[in-house]
Formats: sequence, structure tokens, C-alpha cells
Amino acid sequence: MTAVNRQIHIVELPKDKLGPEHFRLAQGAMPQAKDGELLLKTKLISLDAANRAWMQGATYRAAIEAGQVMAGGAVAEVVEAKAPGFANGDLVFADTGWQEYAALPAKHAQKLPRIEPLSHLLSVYGIAGLTAYFGLLNVGKPKAGETVVVSAAAGSVGVFVGQIAKLKGCRVIGIAGGEKKCAWLKSDLGFDAVIDYKAQAVGGALKDAAPKGIDVYFDNVGGDILEACLFRMNNHGRISCCGAVSQYDGAAPRHGPRGIPGLIVTKRLTMQGFIVMDFNAERDKAMSDLQSWVKSGQIKVPEDIMDGIENTPKALIGLLAGDNFGKRMVRVG
Amino acid sequence: MTAVNRQIHIVELPKDKLGPEHFRLAQGAMPQAKDGELLLKTKLISLDAANRAWMQGATYRAAIEAGQVMAGGAVAEVVEAKAPGFANGDLVFADTGWQEYAALPAKHAQKLPRIEPLSHLLSVYGIAGLTAYFGLLNVGKPKAGETVVVSAAAGSVGVFVGQIAKLKGCRVIGIAGGEKKCAWLKSDLGFDAVIDYKAQAVGGALKDAAPKGIDVYFDNVGGDILEACLFRMNNHGRISCCGAVSQYDGAAPRHGPRGIPGLIVTKRLTMQGFIVMDFNAERDKAMSDLQSWVKSGQIKVPEDIMDGIENTPKALIGLLAGDNFGKRMVRVG
Repeated sequence: MTAVNRQIHIVELPKDKLGPEHFRLAQGAMPQAKDGELLLKTKLISLDAANRAWMQGATYRAAIEAGQVMAGGAVAEVVEAKAPGFANGDLVFADTGWQEYAALPAKHAQKLPRIEPLSHLLSVYGIAGLTAYFGLLNVGKPKAGETVVVSAAAGSVGVFVGQIAKLKGCRVIGIAGGEKKCAWLKSDLGFDAVIDYKAQAVGGALKDAAPKGIDVYFDNVGGDILEACLFRMNNHGRISCCGAVSQYDGAAPRHGPRGIPGLIVTKRLTMQGFIVMDFNAERDKAMSDLQSWVKSGQIKVPEDIMDGIENTPKALIGLLAGDNFGKRMVRVG
Repeated sequence: MTAVNRQIHIVELPKDKLGPEHFRLAQGAMPQAKDGELLLKTKLISLDAANRAWMQGATYRAAIEAGQVMAGGAVAEVVEAKAPGFANGDLVFADTGWQEYAALPAKHAQKLPRIEPLSHLLSVYGIAGLTAYFGLLNVGKPKAGETVVVSAAAGSVGVFVGQIAKLKGCRVIGIAGGEKKCAWLKSDLGFDAVIDYKAQAVGGALKDAAPKGIDVYFDNVGGDILEACLFRMNNHGRISCCGAVSQYDGAAPRHGPRGIPGLIVTKRLTMQGFIVMDFNAERDKAMSDLQSWVKSGQIKVPEDIMDGIENTPKALIGLLAGDNFGKRMVRVG
């Protein structure tokens, strides 16, 4: 075991766009596990748009502060268990932060099954896959034959939203940035239609792609794309509000989309926010469904893995710019 | 029976604020009922913010067109029934338009019980009361002990939303315009707290009036007040989207409230639009609840009645300016 613990510190909270200057690589001391704690070795760090949102203030977790190790979830291995119910070698998901080793209370670690490849624990069987599952099925409630639109469609959650909606018999339209990503969604993941928001006006493109209107919109981005979808929703449509990535990486939020609340009233829409923890009670059923779909090949598992903890800031900055194809993570151990 | 049918025509659709110049009093011919139709004598015309929204284009009903009799619902009496199931003297609710007599297909008329005073058929037992009932109980779903906020609290719907929420054990805060209305909501209708949006900044006032945050916001207005409430909602709060009266009487809708979708995600809020027809299946239960609450004195029925069809434009313009205390209507017959 090395005596050094490489870490990424956040030097200063971004006021506008996040850049490499907001981070620095540091060498911390090896942490020690106290009674009730686990010493963890980080294996795979999850990169999420939410990492950026945490820098804007308290959300469902406390805000991130400058001068500390950057927060972030990871798959980690227990190297020293000082808490009942855990053994050395166990795999857990925990907010280790961006560092090679972390010691934290066992109650903050969630034991994971040893599934190979481990990366699936962060993609399809992790928060990304479960978010897609619950946000689409429990919040969006699509019926066979309905039209489902998903934004950030090539992102960690979007790739599963689209595939699960297809599997449920829906017409699926993905909104993503760039020709390459859009082509990939159609050819590799089976989307019925795609809209490249960098090349096309989304409102007009939706008229062609969703001639019968939209029944379920799974919103990962907010902003102008949410507005464009609002104007194409069918009566009694559902908008599953998963994230607002268009508004994380910048200054104070702009005004909201036009049509709120007017269109919500006249079309009797439901907009509902959720986070995956709200559905913990149904987690086993979701995992079992996802595993059977992966095994049968009904859903593919795109992953976008970078190596080396020193690349974690770059991985997040790129994620916010939309560089990733599927779930982005950094392999550490 | 007079041979003349006094009517209010809409001369021109308003581009901005609605004024008396958009209407004219006209004398139409007495309509004739064809087979399958009813000849109706208008008794009480219902004034609603929705009347103004219809002038902006198609909503859940077709848009209003210039040069025609102004559309509007009314309690009317059947004077000549040429359709099975109806008899002379029956009371119905129908879109007679703003005129003394109308002939229309019987299938567009809804038979009403002969409840006295007839005005209750437009207030507590009409769309106003049912909208409050379903929008609060079926959409907002308040639990005893929760905090409920309602805007346009002195309006036709708001007065019942507040009283029903009190009856369900909630803390109730009303937002209304003007000292007199606000005082009345507390002294006569039992609201726990009131905010005069013309005299106070709503965001700051909500901090004092709702120290534990808002669980249910019944939104009649949209705009800045919706935005202020969004920022004070508790996790898992519900926003019942009933109307957007702040945005009906003017030009194109402004941008939506800040915090959408960001706050919807982080607080896991639900915003849901509805119209009363969506709940037709549960109408009998609602009517029976409302009747028992009125009989027992648990809810009061404020009504704001003007006389004479020539006053209907003034009644609507005043309603949009917030002049009314409770349900506004015009007595015609």
C-alpha cells in the first residue's frame, strides 16, 4: 500500500464556466479508518453533470467548498473494514471524492454485488441506469405507441432512456449535439429519429420527428430545448425533470421557458422532478429488469472510460461540453 | 317573449389590455330551436379569467373570433325543448354566449338541479367550486398540517381552495391584491395569513407567512408570484396549475419563472395542469362533499353579482383587474 494519497482539490468555485484552473492535483496523507469506518481504495470515479450543480450551492446534498477534495461518487474496494457487516475486499459505492483512498463511516457506503465488468455498476446498474429506469417508467409513464423524446440522449442516462422506451413499444426521438453522436444513436442504439441541436432548430425539427406530438419528454437539459418540447407536448403529456445541464455550467439561472404555466394548464401537463433515491423501495425490481435486458441484449451498455485520477477534471469539463458517448468514468485503481 | 335578443358582440380581438372598446351591445334576432336543439333563456352569465384566455387562440376550446357574440357559459332556462330528455323550464349550464336567448344542440347543454339560490350553480356548485375541489384535493393532495398557498385567493376559485384546505387541517396563506380583500380573507373566510401582492414583495412575505415552507401551491396567476412560490416550496411539494391570469390580459407571454426546471429537479416538485372536465368521473362525490360543507356552514359562498347584460363587458374587465370578491356573474333574466 502506498503511503501517498493522490487527490484532486477544488481550488476555487467557478463563477461561470468550469475550467482546469479550478482544480489542482495534490498529495494527501493516507487516511485512517476509525471505529465504524471503512478505508476505501477508489476503483472507478463516476463523472456526472450533478458534480457541477453541487458547486452552485446546496441541492439534495451540501454545497461543495473551495480548498477541499472534490466530491464525487465512486466504486471502491474496502481495504480495511472497521465496521460490522463489511469485510476487506467488499465492493461499495460511496462518495469517496476524487482521491485514491478515503476513510468514511460505513453507513455512508452502499455495498455492491461483484458484477463484471465493474464499470456496469456505474452505468447501467448504477445511478445512470436507475435514473433512466425510474424517471422514464415511474415518472414519465409511457404507454406503447406513444412518442418519447429524450435530451442529452447520448449521455449516461439518455442512452438508457431511449433504449428502455423502445423496449416498451414507444417511438423514440433523441436530442443530442453533433452529427457523430446523432448517427450513433440511430445506428447503434435503435433510436427512431434524432435531432442535432447544434445543427438544427429543435422546435422545427420536432415537428418532423414527432408528427403526432410528444407524450413523454425526459428532460436532462432545461432551457431552450425544454421550451421547444413544451410547445409540442400533447394533452396530458408528462415531462420527467431529471436535470438542467444547460444551466449548471454558467452564472445565475436565466429566466425559465416560455409557456409555463400557460401550456401546463391548457394541455394539462405534468412536470415532475425526481432523484433516484426517491425510488429506493423499488430498486430490486429495477435491477432485476435491467439485468435481464442487458443479458438478453435488449439494451446495450455504452461506456466512456478514461484512465488516471489526474484526468478527472478534464473528464468532467469534457462531460459538461458533451464530449462523452454514454456513461463517463475515470479508472483509478 | 320579446322578439329582440340583446347580445354583446366582440368587435375586435384585443392585442393587449382588454377594454370596453372591444365590445358592443347589439340586437340580434330571436333564435329558433331546430330539431335536437334547445331554445334557452339566459339567467346568469359566468365571468371567468378563461374568457380572456380564449381571445388569445385555441386552448381546450376554439378561439373566439371578432364579429361574433362573445362566448361564455351561463345558467339558462329551457324555453323550448326540441330534444328528448329536456322539458320546458329545465335549468341547464351551456355556452349560450353573452346574449339573452340562444338556440343550441341539446348535447351541448348540461342539465342542472334546481338549487336555490341559482347563483350557487355558478359558484360553489359550478366550475369554480369544482375546480377548487379537484385542483386542491386531486392534484395538490394536501395532508393535514401542511402549508397551502393560493394566489388570486379572493377570486372565484381561490375562496374555495382556501376554505377547503382549512377544512382539511392545513395552514392556509392567501395571496391577493389590496388591503380590503386581504382583510376579508382573514376575517370572513378564516385564512391563517394573507399577502397583499400590491403592497408587499411576495418572496419576503412568504418567508414570514410560511416559515416551514410551502407544501402545496395552488397557482391561479403564473408569472412572478409563481416564481416566488417556487423558491419557497418544500421537497416533494405540489403545484396545482389552474390558471395564469397574470398572463392573459396582455401581449405575448413573457419568459417563464426562474427556477424551472432547476428547482423542480432538486426539490422533486410536481407541477400539474388540469381542467375540471378531467375529473367528470368524480363529480358526484365532489358535489356531495361541497353540498354538505355549505349546509353545515363549514364553507361560505362569496358571490359578486352585477345586473344587466349591458354590464357584462365591464364585469369581465373588472374581473381581470381583480375587482371581484368571490365568483363574479351577471344576472340577465
